[in-house]
Amino acid sequence: MNQQYPSVLLEKAINEFSKLPGIGRKTALRLVLHLLRQDKATVELFGNSIIKLKNEVKYCKVCHNISDTEVCQICANPNRDASLVCVVENIRDVMIIESTQQFRGLYHVLGGVISPMDGVGPNDLQIESLVERASKGDIKEVILALSTTMEGDTTNFYIYRKLEKMDVKLSILARGVSIGDELEYTDEVTLGKSIINRTLFTGNI
Amino acid sequence: MNQQYPSVLLEKAINEFSKLPGIGRKTALRLVLHLLRQDKATVELFGNSIIKLKNEVKYCKVCHNISDTEVCQICANPNRDASLVCVVENIRDVMIIESTQQFRGLYHVLGGVISPMDGVGPNDLQIESLVERASKGDIKEVILALSTTMEGDTTNFYIYRKLEKMDVKLSILARGVSIGDELEYTDEVTLGKSIINRTLFTGNI
Repeated sequence: MNQQYPSVLLEKAINEFSKLPGIGRKTALRLVLHLLRQDKATVELFGNSIIKLKNEVKYCKVCHNISDTEVCQICANPNRDASLVCVVENIRDVMIIESTQQFRGLYHVLGGVISPMDGVGPNDLQIESLVERASKGDIKEVILALSTTMEGDTTNFYIYRKLEKMDVKLSILARGVSIGDELEYTDEVTLGKSIINRTLFTGNI
Repeated sequence: MNQQYPSVLLEKAINEFSKLPGIGRKTALRLVLHLLRQDKATVELFGNSIIKLKNEVKYCKVCHNISDTEVCQICANPNRDASLVCVVENIRDVMIIESTQQFRGLYHVLGGVISPMDGVGPNDLQIESLVERASKGDIKEVILALSTTMEGDTTNFYIYRKLEKMDVKLSILARGVSIGDELEYTDEVTLGKSIINRTLFTGNI
């Protein structure tokens, strides 16, 4: 729709919504009109929820995950294995791994991956604090769970070089065929890796 | 993801975003994390834009379109044809028709259509004010541009009954084959209507 909006206030709200990822101007209009149909209290709750989050959110001083407290619930949990640390890019990855219920260790949130193209260097990430954590001697294994992209691999290698002289085991997520995938739809590189890294079959998977 | 969020503030913001139409919890998380990466001023601008809109927006006292002023820009424009009024369901429809640049009359925004299933009766809509506008004698033609649904048709008929004794021409949007559509993908009802309402072909469309 190439036309003026009937209200500057409406236009401003649409402009703000359309800055969100994946939200075009048409969707922004739909969302704003939806909110406009709600009562004032609902709209204020909506608008203030994100402002309050931004102003009051804390990041765990140990793992840098989002938290309401100085140290997050995961790091503060005595039932979790503090000798095992999983390195992830962002707080969403923490939630995704938590949802698998397969990991009982702690996390370390880097805040991204090294990407010279985007101007992200090692010092923009929480790598130094990972090295510091590892140097204390309590961590036995660091699992690298970054994206399987060139940037992820670069970051993996950078961390490897930083930690290789310490008495810390470094591991990486298994790469292979997705469960439920048919072989013909698996890309060659993944399939190749899954042949090289094949595991012993003992009757159950 | 069936798991607890690492922060109550985060969870509250995600809850608010996921109330928006078409936004699930995964998308809400993505949007909230995007905003969290912006600086404070940007987030406040976002949150306040919708609160400000809700608190300060006006509706045109003539046509009930959204407006920053008592009378909207369209109603206040002396170059528009005040004898021609297009009846639409909502302010989005005004914008859509405006974007066609084919209409130089004024609008009347009903605020919905009659829908007993949803508990919307004639008195919940701006129908009485339309009758009042029409009764002043300045309007020559009222164009009904409501949805081509049962509710739209009901509302069309209700307005017809209200205006039939006035000296006002009532018209309805042409229904027919969409431009660019192939006949085999056009539904039978539309195709039937487009045959009955065929127009004289004079060499150009």
